[in-house]
Amino acid sequence: MNKKEDKLGIKAKKTEDFSEWYNEVVIKGQLADHSTLKGFMIIKPTGYAIWEKIQSCFDKSIKKLGVRNAYFPLLIPESFFKKEAEHAEGFAPELAWVMDEEQREKYALRPTSETIMYDSYSRWIRSWRDLPLRLNQWCNVLRWEVKQTKLFIRTREFLWQEGHCVYETDEECKKEKLTYLNEYKEICEDLLAIPVLEGEKTDRERFAGAKTTYTLEALMPDGKALQMGTSHNLGQNFAKAFGIKYLGKDEKERMPWQNSWGISTRLIGALVMAHSDDNGLVLPPKVAPTQIVIVPIFKSENRGEVVKKAEELKSKLKNYNIELDDRDGYTPGWKFNEWELKGVPIRIEIGPKDIAKNQVVLARRDNNSKEAVKINQLDKKIKDTLEDIQSSLFNKAKKFLNSNITEAKNWNDFNKKIKNKKLVKAFFCGKVDCEDNIKDKTGGATSRLIPFNQPKKLGKCVHCNKESKFLVLFGKAY
Amino acid sequence: MNKKEDKLGIKAKKTEDFSEWYNEVVIKGQLADHSTLKGFMIIKPTGYAIWEKIQSCFDKSIKKLGVRNAYFPLLIPESFFKKEAEHAEGFAPELAWVMDEEQREKYALRPTSETIMYDSYSRWIRSWRDLPLRLNQWCNVLRWEVKQTKLFIRTREFLWQEGHCVYETDEECKKEKLTYLNEYKEICEDLLAIPVLEGEKTDRERFAGAKTTYTLEALMPDGKALQMGTSHNLGQNFAKAFGIKYLGKDEKERMPWQNSWGISTRLIGALVMAHSDDNGLVLPPKVAPTQIVIVPIFKSENRGEVVKKAEELKSKLKNYNIELDDRDGYTPGWKFNEWELKGVPIRIEIGPKDIAKNQVVLARRDNNSKEAVKINQLDKKIKDTLEDIQSSLFNKAKKFLNSNITEAKNWNDFNKKIKNKKLVKAFFCGKVDCEDNIKDKTGGATSRLIPFNQPKKLGKCVHCNKESKFLVLFGKAY
Repeated sequence: MNKKEDKLGIKAKKTEDFSEWYNEVVIKGQLADHSTLKGFMIIKPTGYAIWEKIQSCFDKSIKKLGVRNAYFPLLIPESFFKKEAEHAEGFAPELAWVMDEEQREKYALRPTSETIMYDSYSRWIRSWRDLPLRLNQWCNVLRWEVKQTKLFIRTREFLWQEGHCVYETDEECKKEKLTYLNEYKEICEDLLAIPVLEGEKTDRERFAGAKTTYTLEALMPDGKALQMGTSHNLGQNFAKAFGIKYLGKDEKERMPWQNSWGISTRLIGALVMAHSDDNGLVLPPKVAPTQIVIVPIFKSENRGEVVKKAEELKSKLKNYNIELDDRDGYTPGWKFNEWELKGVPIRIEIGPKDIAKNQVVLARRDNNSKEAVKINQLDKKIKDTLEDIQSSLFNKAKKFLNSNITEAKNWNDFNKKIKNKKLVKAFFCGKVDCEDNIKDKTGGATSRLIPFNQPKKLGKCVHCNKESKFLVLFGKAY
Repeated sequence: MNKKEDKLGIKAKKTEDFSEWYNEVVIKGQLADHSTLKGFMIIKPTGYAIWEKIQSCFDKSIKKLGVRNAYFPLLIPESFFKKEAEHAEGFAPELAWVMDEEQREKYALRPTSETIMYDSYSRWIRSWRDLPLRLNQWCNVLRWEVKQTKLFIRTREFLWQEGHCVYETDEECKKEKLTYLNEYKEICEDLLAIPVLEGEKTDRERFAGAKTTYTLEALMPDGKALQMGTSHNLGQNFAKAFGIKYLGKDEKERMPWQNSWGISTRLIGALVMAHSDDNGLVLPPKVAPTQIVIVPIFKSENRGEVVKKAEELKSKLKNYNIELDDRDGYTPGWKFNEWELKGVPIRIEIGPKDIAKNQVVLARRDNNSKEAVKINQLDKKIKDTLEDIQSSLFNKAKKFLNSNITEAKNWNDFNKKIKNKKLVKAFFCGKVDCEDNIKDKTGGATSRLIPFNQPKKLGKCVHCNKESKFLVLFGKAY
């Protein structure tokens, strides 16, 4: 048994080797595995069950908002990419191509579906009656990443949803792109218990082909920012490139306005980083595929009695996602470790002594506390504890985020704070060249977002000292 | 308005040009569209909503059976295909390959995932404790079809689920592959109202690499058989090829047994063919994204009153998937046509005269019957009518199927009945060559299945007159 226990546990420490720790938690927590194919991952059942929770939650929200799901082809003709110059240039390094000897044209595996969807939109949209058009698809996308890949965070294939809407007016378009950003915030904060910051992207970080990109950013425990979701105001760029037009109420031909927005399986990576610890996964109750595990503590002579009681408890608590671990051949201690590794929020231990006292022992995964609970109070206690775990995880993460945002008045200060793994607010000129320089000199700091609430008075750019355009949040990112 | 009505309706007749009729119903019923890419389709929101119903229904069933969802990479290294010779040969003509200049190996876009999944299984499975392993994935697959493509039925990319299970014994494996086939039958008959026949495939029609393939076949109104779902007993073929082994309870190294099984978006094609008519789609209530549509009948002077009453009805019936069509600028007749085209099972008409009588007019899509219903009886009437439409559609299709199965005692008889678009039962030797000949001589008839219930006494093969192996059902297929 000892050998197995060694094999199970996480060896790296979160505070010492974050990257190796993360990899171990993902793999040993059974969320995902590396594929034989370089840069590709396999999403294992527990990881996929988390994705299904995110999907189900988000899918319900957008359906209420009038969005409908559809499915567009995986392959995109090369000519489509060439229609919107900035989009083509932005995605060029990441495309994988399909050979087809019959065809004259090369096909790219979709890295995102603007071009193939808008080709259809140009045929489907005729009049103002067809607008707003709000479609979404859940699918796989491929980006031939050249950087080091990382499970869930940066892989050559990942799963996501992409929403693509078309509106009569610029106003509607602008308004709704924030609606979707708010839905993402709800997913991050309410479901995953990860606090996020919201804002606009600078020119350098904007989505290829968009007029404006809006983003949610979270801060990971290693001091790096992680983009959690984005929403793009495409303006009329793609409508122009793909010839999307509609007949207005005034019987005149008009050009519509578009936005697109997405979240991906990357959120599962953020979830792991934000909450997990040196014993493995820690999952917020709302997204945990298993919320409670019952571990009966028995010897062969009282196995029957204890397991029977455990089964009774399980059926009493059947409204939760609950598992009973009555496997033979494993010690309770070994089982405790395994379920801790898997991040199950609540563990219920029950043995002969507990049965005699009509109680169970309830252990919390998030803070390791243990307490005896009378069985007739268990239902209420479980409900309260799950709620408390969910809010505690969020509050802890929120405190961490708040204590790591700081401001820098000058370039020296900026450098020092970036080195100290802070998110740094500073005035910035907005120029791509200047941001390139900041990235080079700091070993990787880029603008994460331009906060929606800007100060009334702006100072000089923290790097070039020229007139600044806005206050920007900088940080290192994945 | 007339011009629009012309454009909306189906021009081809189901009995005269089935193929063109089908294409029109799919496109004008807004289920799917052809893509600019040859052989690819776009699944539009209504089509995708039907797929979501199938998914949700089947996903619940398999989760109850202990199957868990996962996701494996889209790309499959060429070397994986070469490991199982029969599998490699079977799929060779249908593969599309990805170019990647950095890599030495070519990658195929998955046509099915046995090889990439079993490569992982060989690393994951260690002992009998890891078995049975039951994984499923919902994904896109690509088969570079050379035959004429047809929306939903035969396209170069389609959506499906593929289940892949591993067991300790041959018995478990054989038993469960029929479990999944039964679930498919439930989906076809209970949800889609399409009766199916079940049986085994002959050597010629077997899945590439399988020991045995089990199939469900339905008969379409043009006399062609359509494969609705398959389950394969893979035996130990892939375990051998991919080195999947486990340590048995007896501490000895053993080789496991496997099955795989799938259904696809092709079912939506079957749904259209089976029930729809010259006015467009006819959808069984259980799978219809919209089950009821309310069309208020008003003039500008009484619009307010009528629409208000219609809204009241809608909110009373909110447990159904219901829509209220209060658009201005379209006549009730035009709306009726449009909702008929879209296959909505029940239409409720309500005008000032109905309001005065405290009634509505209820129209059934399946048989065009119309009747006045008192509003206080509407809820019960709707429930009964939806159930009746569901069972009527099934019974009608069942009657059609039964009346088109026949037996052939000799080769002349066989030919005549195949020409008459029947499903023909005949004794057959089971040889691939003999089946090739039958196909050539009849212009396309192949064995559809070997029924599970075989006669005790067999006659001579209907084609070669040699000893027959079983009674087989022959027919033409898509």
